[in-house]
Amino acid sequence: MAVASKVFPIEALREFSTRVFLHFGVSEEDAAQAADVLARADLRGIDSHGVARLHTYFDLLSVGRINPRPQIKVVRSTPSTATIDGDNGLGLVVGPHANRIAMDMAEKCGSGWVSVCNTNHFGIASYYVLEALERDLIGWAMTNATKLVAPLWGAERMLGTNPIAVAFPGKQEPPIVIDVATSAVAFGKIEIARRNGDVIPTGWGIDSRGRATTDPNDIVAGGALLPLGSDRERGGHKGYALAIMVDMLSCVLSGANWGPFAPPFALRQESPTRSVGKGIGHFFGAMRIDGFIDADQFKSQVDDYIRVFRATKPAPGTKGPLIPGDPEREAEQVRRQTGVPLTLPVVEDLLDISAKTGIPLGRGPLGYLRENRYTAGLTRG
Amino acid sequence: MAVASKVFPIEALREFSTRVFLHFGVSEEDAAQAADVLARADLRGIDSHGVARLHTYFDLLSVGRINPRPQIKVVRSTPSTATIDGDNGLGLVVGPHANRIAMDMAEKCGSGWVSVCNTNHFGIASYYVLEALERDLIGWAMTNATKLVAPLWGAERMLGTNPIAVAFPGKQEPPIVIDVATSAVAFGKIEIARRNGDVIPTGWGIDSRGRATTDPNDIVAGGALLPLGSDRERGGHKGYALAIMVDMLSCVLSGANWGPFAPPFALRQESPTRSVGKGIGHFFGAMRIDGFIDADQFKSQVDDYIRVFRATKPAPGTKGPLIPGDPEREAEQVRRQTGVPLTLPVVEDLLDISAKTGIPLGRGPLGYLRENRYTAGLTRG
Repeated sequence: MAVASKVFPIEALREFSTRVFLHFGVSEEDAAQAADVLARADLRGIDSHGVARLHTYFDLLSVGRINPRPQIKVVRSTPSTATIDGDNGLGLVVGPHANRIAMDMAEKCGSGWVSVCNTNHFGIASYYVLEALERDLIGWAMTNATKLVAPLWGAERMLGTNPIAVAFPGKQEPPIVIDVATSAVAFGKIEIARRNGDVIPTGWGIDSRGRATTDPNDIVAGGALLPLGSDRERGGHKGYALAIMVDMLSCVLSGANWGPFAPPFALRQESPTRSVGKGIGHFFGAMRIDGFIDADQFKSQVDDYIRVFRATKPAPGTKGPLIPGDPEREAEQVRRQTGVPLTLPVVEDLLDISAKTGIPLGRGPLGYLRENRYTAGLTRG
Repeated sequence: MAVASKVFPIEALREFSTRVFLHFGVSEEDAAQAADVLARADLRGIDSHGVARLHTYFDLLSVGRINPRPQIKVVRSTPSTATIDGDNGLGLVVGPHANRIAMDMAEKCGSGWVSVCNTNHFGIASYYVLEALERDLIGWAMTNATKLVAPLWGAERMLGTNPIAVAFPGKQEPPIVIDVATSAVAFGKIEIARRNGDVIPTGWGIDSRGRATTDPNDIVAGGALLPLGSDRERGGHKGYALAIMVDMLSCVLSGANWGPFAPPFALRQESPTRSVGKGIGHFFGAMRIDGFIDADQFKSQVDDYIRVFRATKPAPGTKGPLIPGDPEREAEQVRRQTGVPLTLPVVEDLLDISAKTGIPLGRGPLGYLRENRYTAGLTRG
């Protein structure tokens, strides 16, 4: 699907985001950190989680709903576990901080596990597990989010799309980078179908009365997404159970708001009727590879694994299985060279921020319109 | 669906299994342990993983393919991680041993994570997380298994049904016990449909050329199960990625056989063309709740969570969402009282073992035929 877009070099977007965070009094280090998380999403083709969300952060900071200078605290710890209170800071700052604590613990005692409360949206889960790879660790990341997903046999939104990310390094092959929502599909796909007037596949969602629907408008108008597996026959109880697992680890273990009580990400979204904790929650893990096996031996096996799976007999009409992380890595290679295509509504959002703050939006070399190869194909499922 | 069955008290099955293991020189402690894992599956209504598998263990022990007296060794460790070599013992013995090591580490330093190689089928994953609950820990369990599942866009079996289990204790409410295969459906459901001449739903499997099929015979005759999510549109890449995660943690991290190279569980199954490690692999984790939050506060929140989710508006034609672990706990309550119904082919298997070993199969109070409420409804999806 061709989508009109303007292309920006990643450094232009990174600088713009950094200056927007600085504008609200975020420290230089934290602003650069937050912009880095957004930039990674844009580079990896996960367009819904990059600068496309900057206006929402801008709105929340504007009305004081996010603390630009949080005092992030360790509430409780053992040698391999900790709970962090993010002091209502940007998730893009609290998340990387908590993830570093998990990695530090792993380096000292084999593994580290950190549950985080009083935080906000942390960007793409894969950011955190890629950071762990840089330190030769196996990383884990999870988060809850605003309710969008119905439990199997439920007729209302009770859970976020609650992703699970984990990554394993190869030696000569690129790493295996897993980052999967526990819903059947991302809400972004519903919105795209709605804009295009398309029917959606069965198994994506239900209407406000809990009935299966193929009309994206039904889902937006009080319906819900379905969990991974969609229905009972195809394992919808499994996606639902995994979403609960993420909720337990990220929220109940940290003292954050779980299930339907997760505070909304955007200003326009309705606030929950109850509060059962502080902010939303994340969960990070890190494990030393050599806490289990020689790291070099592990990576050679990962290489072998990747080659064996790439050589799987392909299903008809396909080129055979991908390795998790392939599409995002390929997007990153292209976009580092040629820039990040942003759809026009996203560009307008950034220009609106620019007008309100006086921060110039660098256009990149030309700012030309062209067909966007990535928006349609690589949006996270 | 009514299935002809005989009902046995759990103690009769437990004693029979124990004596069968003893017959092969398994130690008293290990035989009781192995029988306990099988009994738990039978009690919880996971009929495919209880004494229904005893004949396979019997076969493997008979031909010396499983070591009845393994020297289980810690190969490598840090304060919170370890790798265990199971010395080709029964998974029903190696698994509980490795799980205890994970729990011991958790009690000492907050969490414990154990990857296991050179082991065999370990029964139900939920056994291990229920053990963790007994010690007031959050437990995790995963394992690989014989190949049955195709990667998304693959046309051949490359992965096992690789389950993920994790459990969280409530205070007044029962625990949340998650135990989900990463395939869309269990192979047992294909076999049931085949026996009954039924068509199966789309999304369960593919034929030997990789095409979607609704004929269970196609899957048995060289086809494969599909991963959770079934196809690309509904998130089949996610189930596939989670199956890889289980494989990495259980096998690549421990030095076991991963992916298509997992040795077969049953004698009649074909052996893989390559060996890339030792035996199959498991992965266990345990975390102290009070390494994150006051344990009592956690359990009260779990109670609240369960009540909130039980009160979800029900989808039409349902009684509303279940809490993961509900059906198995209810089965256990009934079966502890009234016994375990075994289908006639399973009873014949046990009688065959009895004839070959001279170990009597206690019939329980009556051994009467009756409708089996559980076999059909509660078989693991």
